[in-house]
Amino acid sequence: MRLEHSYRTERFGAVRIHELQRVIELDSGAGAGDSGSDAIPQDALRAIERELVIVIPCMNETRRVIEGVLSGIPHDCLIVLVSNSDRYPVDRYEIEAQTVEQFCRLAGRPAITVHQRDPGLAAAMKAAGMPELIDDDGLVRRGKGEAMLIGMALAALTGRRYVGYVDADNYVPGAVHEYCKVYAAGLHLADSPYAMVRISWHSKPKVRDGRLFFSRRGRSSEITNAFLNRLVAEYSGFGTDVIATGNAGEHALSLALGMRLRLAGGFAVEPFHYVDLFEQFGGVLESAHPEVMASSVPVLQVETRNPHFHENKGEDHVRGMRTQALNVVYHSPVALPAVRSAIVDFLTGQGALSASAEPPRERIYPPVGSLAFDLLFDALPEAETFREIGAGALAARPA
Amino acid sequence: MRLEHSYRTERFGAVRIHELQRVIELDSGAGAGDSGSDAIPQDALRAIERELVIVIPCMNETRRVIEGVLSGIPHDCLIVLVSNSDRYPVDRYEIEAQTVEQFCRLAGRPAITVHQRDPGLAAAMKAAGMPELIDDDGLVRRGKGEAMLIGMALAALTGRRYVGYVDADNYVPGAVHEYCKVYAAGLHLADSPYAMVRISWHSKPKVRDGRLFFSRRGRSSEITNAFLNRLVAEYSGFGTDVIATGNAGEHALSLALGMRLRLAGGFAVEPFHYVDLFEQFGGVLESAHPEVMASSVPVLQVETRNPHFHENKGEDHVRGMRTQALNVVYHSPVALPAVRSAIVDFLTGQGALSASAEPPRERIYPPVGSLAFDLLFDALPEAETFREIGAGALAARPA
Ligand SMILES: Nc1nc2c(ncn2[C@@H]2O[C@H](COP(=O)(O)OP(=O)(O)OP(=O)(O)O)[C@@H](O)[C@H]2O)c(=O)[nH]1
Ligand SMILES: Nc1nc2c(ncn2[C@@H]2O[C@H](COP(=O)(O)OP(=O)(O)OP(=O)(O)O)[C@@H](O)[C@H]2O)c(=O)[nH]1
Repeated sequence: MRLEHSYRTERFGAVRIHELQRVIELDSGAGAGDSGSDAIPQDALRAIERELVIVIPCMNETRRVIEGVLSGIPHDCLIVLVSNSDRYPVDRYEIEAQTVEQFCRLAGRPAITVHQRDPGLAAAMKAAGMPELIDDDGLVRRGKGEAMLIGMALAALTGRRYVGYVDADNYVPGAVHEYCKVYAAGLHLADSPYAMVRISWHSKPKVRDGRLFFSRRGRSSEITNAFLNRLVAEYSGFGTDVIATGNAGEHALSLALGMRLRLAGGFAVEPFHYVDLFEQFGGVLESAHPEVMASSVPVLQVETRNPHFHENKGEDHVRGMRTQALNVVYHSPVALPAVRSAIVDFLTGQGALSASAEPPRERIYPPVGSLAFDLLFDALPEAETFREIGAGALAARPA
Repeated sequence: MRLEHSYRTERFGAVRIHELQRVIELDSGAGAGDSGSDAIPQDALRAIERELVIVIPCMNETRRVIEGVLSGIPHDCLIVLVSNSDRYPVDRYEIEAQTVEQFCRLAGRPAITVHQRDPGLAAAMKAAGMPELIDDDGLVRRGKGEAMLIGMALAALTGRRYVGYVDADNYVPGAVHEYCKVYAAGLHLADSPYAMVRISWHSKPKVRDGRLFFSRRGRSSEITNAFLNRLVAEYSGFGTDVIATGNAGEHALSLALGMRLRLAGGFAVEPFHYVDLFEQFGGVLESAHPEVMASSVPVLQVETRNPHFHENKGEDHVRGMRTQALNVVYHSPVALPAVRSAIVDFLTGQGALSASAEPPRERIYPPVGSLAFDLLFDALPEAETFREIGAGALAARPA
């Protein structure tokens, strides 16, 4: 894979946000990079892929689409599917687990699947020390952020070093493939143990007037990015548009970073990455992690070549995502008053907030690294939906 | 890349048509194959890619789409763009050539571009011994088959061993990438110097009632395949549906085979591949190539994972393609009377042929191997639009 070289980075304490880099070649073979581009040879990609867990949050997607997504994930990555699909009247999770199992049998590779609402999973997460994740029914809360958190906890149990996410509703296996290659390329290029790679898709096809239109910007992400950039600019005193991936569902990170991050619930999970990076490593508040402050936290942002072509969840969904994003920015202790009042103005103007009300708080979980992994490891097999497909997915009992 | 293993082949003389194989994994890493699947390691793919020329026939496609297509072609393949784009009022060829040049500069790779209607190209092809290609204006005829023929002739000049085709109007770079990987995988698996790989795309998204619908079969290809299968069945006495790629625009072949094949003009080029294989190597007519008859001609058919997502050229275009396909089957000396009368019935039923008329003949060109390549090589630089980008695209003067 060949990426455009990124020259400019914006610093926020130890966080180094790289300007958006485009993908030049999906496969750069043994080609060399130069001043304008970084070529990452297949062997270097493979070395990362062997350490990379790909988590697929999945909720009621069709079998055909899931099959396509699986086919796009490079062989050396370990697949972890976290489902929140309906189990009645049809047990969709059972179909998903079978789909993964069948694929893995054909492809000779391991995988892990689990259902988010499995009482055994809730018990295991509670035992491991994260009661915050459990709702009034005694089950792990619904939500994409919650699925990502479960996925990260499972990733930590595999003994691998990196975790990346791809949605289950992607119609283009080649795009999934590109995302994974971008993760590997970015994690290879990022010269730090605490690294994150976030994807900005090239375009999003939409049906309009009976034909396809490739729109460049997401409806939700423009707003999210604008406010995140504003947050940064208030500190530096310079306007910036460096953040282009505030809502990046598709992202990967080193587990060394992931273990320290707090994740937000629902669709707040993605923008909150930035917020938490600023809070923990921005140098504004005291950091609990001097080892990270002494190093750096590169955030690479990569614009992929493939269109992001997935099911359209509708306008409400988009509005909901945007509001959750702004809620987390608003409540961050690093957001300065000017940003906060701009957010309130925007939300009231949109009718998403009644006059003189305060944006609601989103749920923020403790870092996955705070879990007692030995307890999780012991309790997990009790979860009825937990499936370890093939051998060697989970590491030996963690220390 | 991992492909489903193909167990069944249908023989027609030396031609061995493999049943459709699905792609299981886009990237099988170092994974091994087994009885159910063939895993082709990256190194094996790369070895083929180094010998593979990718020809892009292009006519009035947008810069953005072409850029995406280029990004999907593996680095080690050599790009050859054959354009039939308008040159007035805007010189679209110039824009295309610049797009290729800019991409190649960033990616550090060579390419060749030429315009199909360049008088210098016509002169070179004429000098090299193919006056059939020239129209009344003294230029190379318009048509996709003609562009493919030019591409094959250029491929032969590079000294590489394989040529494959990808359309310029593909919206999904990941699909282009998959096509190229399938070519490499198929050519690696095919155990013969005379091999062809043809692609059947997974699905084709269409806009219907304001939403996207993924249709499995092409409007033209179902008919073409049915008649090609019927042609085969008339000889074997057994009904068959082995041919699934009669209209495969996306295909690759060894130049050893390509040099011996006759190509048809326009959109007849793709179905005529099968017809010419049957005529030359089917064992019905005497073959001019005993060396091929003593070997075998495997035709691999691969169903890709990515949707084939391209500009919709409309109903007329589809009808035209279908008619051209049936015309070449009808006029083949290997088509038995039952097939021929079924074609006439079908075309009259469709209103594409008036009662008691005969289907028109499509243009069939002599094999590219009959060209005097030394003369072509000498004359080509005279063509004003001929561009050799980067070093090492063309081989030294051919023997
Ligand atoms: N496990 C789990 N998966 C979820 C949940 N909510 C959504 N998902 C999955 O997460 C992926 C993305 O969800 P979407 O609802 O499409 O949201 P999005 O793609 O980020 O938003 P848009 O790009 O604007 O459509 C899909 O694969 C969903 O199936 C959840 O609560 N639990
Ligand atoms: N050089 C050249 N390219 C052509 C010509 N006609 C079509 N093309 C290109 O060939 C590719 C395929 O052409 P289309 O017209 O889309 O036909 P198709 O894709 O085979 O047909 P459908 O799949 O049914 O749409 C595109 O990249 C066109 O730009 C031609 O006369 N000369």
